[in-house]
Amino acid sequence: MSDIAIAQQAQMRPIIDLAGEKLGIPAEHLDPYGHYKAKLSLEYVNNLTDREDGKLILVTAISPTPAGEGKTTTTVGLGDAINRLGNSAIMCLREPSLGPCFGVKGGAAGGGYSQVVPMEDINLHFTGDFHAIGVAHNLLSALIDNHINHGNALDIDSRRIQWKRVVDMNDRALRKITVGMGGPANGYLREDGYDIVVASEIMAILCLATSRVDLKERLGRIVIGYKSDRVTPVYASDLNAQGAMAALLKEAIKPNLVQTLENNIAIIHGGPFANIAHGCNTVTATKTALKLADYVVTEAGFGADLGAEKFLDIKCRMSGLKPSAVVLVATVRALKFHGGVAKEELNQENIDALQKGFTNLERHLDNIQRHYGLPCVICINHFTFDTDAEIALLKDKCEALGAKCVVSKHWAQGGAGAEELAQEVLAVVDNREPGFTYVYDEELPLWDKIETIATKLYGAIGITASPKVKAEINTLQQNHGKFPVCMAKTQMSFSTNPNERGAPSGHTVEISEVRLANGAGFIVAIAGDMMTMPGLPKVPAAERIDITDDGVITGLF
Amino acid sequence: MSDIAIAQQAQMRPIIDLAGEKLGIPAEHLDPYGHYKAKLSLEYVNNLTDREDGKLILVTAISPTPAGEGKTTTTVGLGDAINRLGNSAIMCLREPSLGPCFGVKGGAAGGGYSQVVPMEDINLHFTGDFHAIGVAHNLLSALIDNHINHGNALDIDSRRIQWKRVVDMNDRALRKITVGMGGPANGYLREDGYDIVVASEIMAILCLATSRVDLKERLGRIVIGYKSDRVTPVYASDLNAQGAMAALLKEAIKPNLVQTLENNIAIIHGGPFANIAHGCNTVTATKTALKLADYVVTEAGFGADLGAEKFLDIKCRMSGLKPSAVVLVATVRALKFHGGVAKEELNQENIDALQKGFTNLERHLDNIQRHYGLPCVICINHFTFDTDAEIALLKDKCEALGAKCVVSKHWAQGGAGAEELAQEVLAVVDNREPGFTYVYDEELPLWDKIETIATKLYGAIGITASPKVKAEINTLQQNHGKFPVCMAKTQMSFSTNPNERGAPSGHTVEISEVRLANGAGFIVAIAGDMMTMPGLPKVPAAERIDITDDGVITGLF
Repeated sequence: MSDIAIAQQAQMRPIIDLAGEKLGIPAEHLDPYGHYKAKLSLEYVNNLTDREDGKLILVTAISPTPAGEGKTTTTVGLGDAINRLGNSAIMCLREPSLGPCFGVKGGAAGGGYSQVVPMEDINLHFTGDFHAIGVAHNLLSALIDNHINHGNALDIDSRRIQWKRVVDMNDRALRKITVGMGGPANGYLREDGYDIVVASEIMAILCLATSRVDLKERLGRIVIGYKSDRVTPVYASDLNAQGAMAALLKEAIKPNLVQTLENNIAIIHGGPFANIAHGCNTVTATKTALKLADYVVTEAGFGADLGAEKFLDIKCRMSGLKPSAVVLVATVRALKFHGGVAKEELNQENIDALQKGFTNLERHLDNIQRHYGLPCVICINHFTFDTDAEIALLKDKCEALGAKCVVSKHWAQGGAGAEELAQEVLAVVDNREPGFTYVYDEELPLWDKIETIATKLYGAIGITASPKVKAEINTLQQNHGKFPVCMAKTQMSFSTNPNERGAPSGHTVEISEVRLANGAGFIVAIAGDMMTMPGLPKVPAAERIDITDDGVITGLF
Repeated sequence: MSDIAIAQQAQMRPIIDLAGEKLGIPAEHLDPYGHYKAKLSLEYVNNLTDREDGKLILVTAISPTPAGEGKTTTTVGLGDAINRLGNSAIMCLREPSLGPCFGVKGGAAGGGYSQVVPMEDINLHFTGDFHAIGVAHNLLSALIDNHINHGNALDIDSRRIQWKRVVDMNDRALRKITVGMGGPANGYLREDGYDIVVASEIMAILCLATSRVDLKERLGRIVIGYKSDRVTPVYASDLNAQGAMAALLKEAIKPNLVQTLENNIAIIHGGPFANIAHGCNTVTATKTALKLADYVVTEAGFGADLGAEKFLDIKCRMSGLKPSAVVLVATVRALKFHGGVAKEELNQENIDALQKGFTNLERHLDNIQRHYGLPCVICINHFTFDTDAEIALLKDKCEALGAKCVVSKHWAQGGAGAEELAQEVLAVVDNREPGFTYVYDEELPLWDKIETIATKLYGAIGITASPKVKAEINTLQQNHGKFPVCMAKTQMSFSTNPNERGAPSGHTVEISEVRLANGAGFIVAIAGDMMTMPGLPKVPAAERIDITDDGVITGLF
């Protein structure tokens, strides 16, 4: 059965009833969106401060294949299993983007019997958060060109505007565009471009903001570009934009509650895409969940080199969150892929390739244990075609490295299939104090921060950049030297070349572009030719997605 | 008190309770969006067919000033008054667009004590319908460029793509753009442009579709452009886009229920902007309301030359709806404006200007009565600064034309202020069979349809077009000759010059562009230099819109 077919058979409980029973949240603090989605009031969130925090578990993965390794699936399965074992757990997930949904990857609400529901709604618009972020972003864009059109009192250098436009769609034709064509009535001609909504600084701001006040202040601090002296920043607050933008985000800032197939609560709030953004769910959601449950299972996108790195070095650093353990998701398929097997042959046993591709897992594990000082449980997300010999080899190799390794069948069996995983994880979590070390210190210069990430985590021998980019980094160093760095890099490889599988080393990471995200409070460093607007494949998923005459969605998986 | 301050004091009832009590709608057919907005299931809508229809009342206006004449306010006040008089009435309104909300006009949910609430939510995102329309539109745009990028098997002529992109924002810089810049990875360079979401053909399709099946068929029929032979149309269905687009609209197709300040039900569904679109709420909403109440009050945007014309010649023709009467909203201020008074001096008595500007009302009235054969009640939407002498003159002049004219104070007093208006309207409605005549017959050639509208309704002596546009109209005539015409014209004047106030005559209307809206089933004829993407003013409303630390929206009016 397809994911969507399983999801459509779910016995969902009304979310307001469920949140009341499981978490004791009064109905008046929940705004329903249909009967199975709800937003939680910030007033309720703000009144939880006196409670003790639960334990935080981070689910991350090896470098994935294009289909993903099942991080969300594992997060859901593990959370369901912890609940099955008699504990209380909440899952904190990221909201899906419409881009991959209509592109290659399909939906992003888990899979098999470890899903969050209503799956169609979560994948299509959900509670409108991404649309709100997109329109808040594009309002600022419109205000910039409008300001220049009406006389440019702020003296904005139209050649140095950093603030692009966004759309929640994979649309390569919009990566680089010319706006303002067609004569004086349409304003001034200039180069511009679109990013996908999840790459918007507003997504990062929403994910990192700690209150409505903080949100608006961060929005006001956004640097949209520079004045004609080339160095004086122009802020969103110079355009009086922050109030209207915050107004547009008035609902988006509230965490969204849904349920798993096993009727456990999941909070889905904030943005995905750890390749081009920081890729974590909101701090508000994670902190709220920690007040409401003994265990919180959250995910950080793509491989641990991207997702876990940014979760730990950006999100946790800014918010004070401290995970107790990491679950590293791997699949036999992906490890064979890293061992050089073609996509079409991944269902056939291949011990040699598995052996070879294991280097990818090994480096991620080493990064988590050695560089972050976090305990790590390896979860083999089981696929039907995995052979006993392959599984045995994998377990042996993990244990040789001193790591617990559990084969988990939550995709096929739901929480019941992840009970062993849950037991291993709880054994670790319950026996240590939360905490970890950052990979770089905030006092380190920006260049050195990037270099540290590249050399320690990516296995590179160093980083390089054009004189122009180096000069930009030097300029940013003056006023923003303490900012963490948000790396934008392909998720397919430790290097900047998506085709270099396994654990490449000795490579040099080219930083091709840097961007200041002053409201978010970090510097974006783009490695290689990573793009902040994806494209669609030759046959996009959109072509198979449909709706029946009775309103049932099909083809979404 | 500002509109928003009044709205925030409203004693709202939970919408599901209210819809149950007032209309007998079972809770399971309502999807809540918060506690005060809900979507009605299509299954419930489809089960109403056996019921008798109520009477339909259309509220339209004279040519407005930039602030609007209070059509929505009057629609709400009149509906509240009909309910106060012991009858059942539902108001059918159009959803606000974010463009004018952040631009000149502000919100669009009524005013004073005749508003629909929750006012902030209705103005900001509402239930996400416009975002769904926007992203469905932009998905098709992305699929077009993606198809060309991957080999263009359909042989689309990239110079003849008609399908633009959309955003729900006033953004003049996007009117004309170049996409696909930056080299091969970004596809092929071509000219493109953005319209505001309300001008999207998908908005019209959603408003005119009669079922999910009809919606998907219409989406598939969209003509996105032509093949390299220049004449063979390329349909959205050639790109297999209609299923995914319909899936994105799965919730948007359901009517939205809210309430007025007096706790009467209003259905707000579908698109505004009768200057650049057909500008009516959805057929589904209007037909549903007619099954649920004895009287349905609906609005059609801007002046009657645009709003009422398209309501009658497009929406009613396609759906079989038959209004019983028209309410023509006028203000003393706007008539003085038409008499030549500057905006800053409209609050001062000026009998001469009123006398002179009355020609605008006179022509709208004549159009409604003579060309459509509909009875018309004139509603003077009362403003504080209106003098007794001005009101007396206005009433005299209307009565000399044989038209009932009521001074209505619903803005200040709510439904109580519109009781006299309601009595006059019901007296008319209850004493005639619903029905009217179209201004043009569907068999008339396209050119003649446009000419008929221009000469009969606009007071023009004829229409003109460049040889290129004439040739395009001739081409469209071959396969789409029976389509009605959706005029895009400034709302400020009967002519194409927004500065020609009153009732200009003897002018010639230039048709500058025609577009085929094959899914909607009409031809768009753009008159003069009307633009389908507005711009922001020098000081946009966005600058004053804000949110307090407690989450209360301010500056939205």
